[in-house]
Amino acid sequence: MRAWDAGLYDVVNRRRDTRREFTGDPVAPDVLERLLAAAHAAPSVGMSQPWDFVLVRDPVTLDAFGRHVAGERDTFAAGLRGERAETFSRIKVEGIRESGLGIVVGYDPSRGGPNVLGRHAIADAGLYSVVCAIQNLWLAATAEGLGVGWVSFYREEFLRELVGFPERVRPVAWLCVGPIAELPVVPDLEHYGWRHRSPLAGVVHHERYAPRPD
Amino acid sequence: MRAWDAGLYDVVNRRRDTRREFTGDPVAPDVLERLLAAAHAAPSVGMSQPWDFVLVRDPVTLDAFGRHVAGERDTFAAGLRGERAETFSRIKVEGIRESGLGIVVGYDPSRGGPNVLGRHAIADAGLYSVVCAIQNLWLAATAEGLGVGWVSFYREEFLRELVGFPERVRPVAWLCVGPIAELPVVPDLEHYGWRHRSPLAGVVHHERYAPRPD
Repeated sequence: MRAWDAGLYDVVNRRRDTRREFTGDPVAPDVLERLLAAAHAAPSVGMSQPWDFVLVRDPVTLDAFGRHVAGERDTFAAGLRGERAETFSRIKVEGIRESGLGIVVGYDPSRGGPNVLGRHAIADAGLYSVVCAIQNLWLAATAEGLGVGWVSFYREEFLRELVGFPERVRPVAWLCVGPIAELPVVPDLEHYGWRHRSPLAGVVHHERYAPRPD
Repeated sequence: MRAWDAGLYDVVNRRRDTRREFTGDPVAPDVLERLLAAAHAAPSVGMSQPWDFVLVRDPVTLDAFGRHVAGERDTFAAGLRGERAETFSRIKVEGIRESGLGIVVGYDPSRGGPNVLGRHAIADAGLYSVVCAIQNLWLAATAEGLGVGWVSFYREEFLRELVGFPERVRPVAWLCVGPIAELPVVPDLEHYGWRHRSPLAGVVHHERYAPRPD
C-alpha cells in the first residue's frame, strides 16, 4: 500500500466555496489548463466523458448572468421569514463579475455512442460523471491557491441560451474561478449562521440504513 | 498563491475504476474513517450535507446485490450486436463479492431544512452534492492505495429495498472498496477496446458553445 498522501487530504479539507474573496486577477493559462485537465481526468460512465466547459470572460455575458442570478436570489429571499430572511440578507451568493471568469459546465448525453456501458439502468449516471469532473476541477483549483464558487441561483434554460448549448446539453454548473485574497477557514454559511456542519457519525450506517435520533 | 501541489494531481491521474484487482483483504478502520471524513468534507448546496453511507459487508447482502447486477449485465448485453457484444463479453463490471465491502451512497433531500439555500431553482443541486462526496471518497481511497469500483448496473428500487433506504432517500451509487493488488494504468474500458479517452481540446469552448467537427 502506498504511503498516506497528505496532499490530497489537505486539499479536500481546505476547499471552500468562495464568493467574497476574488481579486479579479486573471488565471494564468497554464494553471487553467491544469484545472481543465484534472476535470477531464474524472471517472465517467462507460468512459463517455460527457462534459463540456465554456470559459466565459466577456463582461457583457458576466453582467447578463449576474442580473439573472440577482433575480433568482430575490425569488428565494421572498420565501423566507424572520430570522431566516435576516440571516440570508447578509450572505453573498456569487462572485460572477468579481472573479472575471465563469466556467459553465454542461452535460451532453449524446457523448459515448448509442450504448453507454453502465447507463442503461440509471439514466442519471452520465450526470454523475459531470459532477465528478467539477469536483476534480474544484480540488485542483484549491491546490493551485485559486477560489471556486459554484453558483446555483439560476434557471437552466436561461444559462443554456446564454452560452448557446444545444437542447440536448444540460447546464450543470456555473463556476466562478479566479485568484483570491484568501481561502475562508470557516464556510460562509456557517460564518453567517445559516447552517452548521453535522457530525460524520450521523450519516454512516452498518449493513442497513438506520435513521439516527436528532 | 500556494505552491503547486503535486499530491492532488498525482491522485487525480492515478485514480481508476477497479473491478478485477481486489484482494479481499479488509480495509483498516482508521483508513475507512479517513475516506468517509473526506466524503463528508465535500461541498453541498446550502450546506445540507444530504448524503448517507451504508457500509455493507454481510456476504448474504453482497451475494444478493451481485446476482441482481448479473441480471442487469445480461439485460445490457442483450441489446448489443457484433463487435460490441464480443468486446463487452470480456469486460468485468463489478467486484462486489471480491472487494468484500460495498459503500452504498444515498441522497436524502430532506436534509438541510425547508429552505435549502441554492436549491430552489435547481432541484438536482442536492444530488450534485452527493456526487462531490463520492468523488472525494474515491480520491481519498486512491491516495490510500485502495481500489474503488462504481457499480451502475442496478435498478435504484432494488438497491433502496436491499439496504432499507426510506422512500425519500435515493440510491446514488454502490462503491466496491478495498485493498487491491495493483491500480490499472490504462482504464479497463480502454484496455479492452470499448472506448478511448478523448482529447481535452474537444470539450473546451470560449465565450459560447461551439461544437467541434469529429
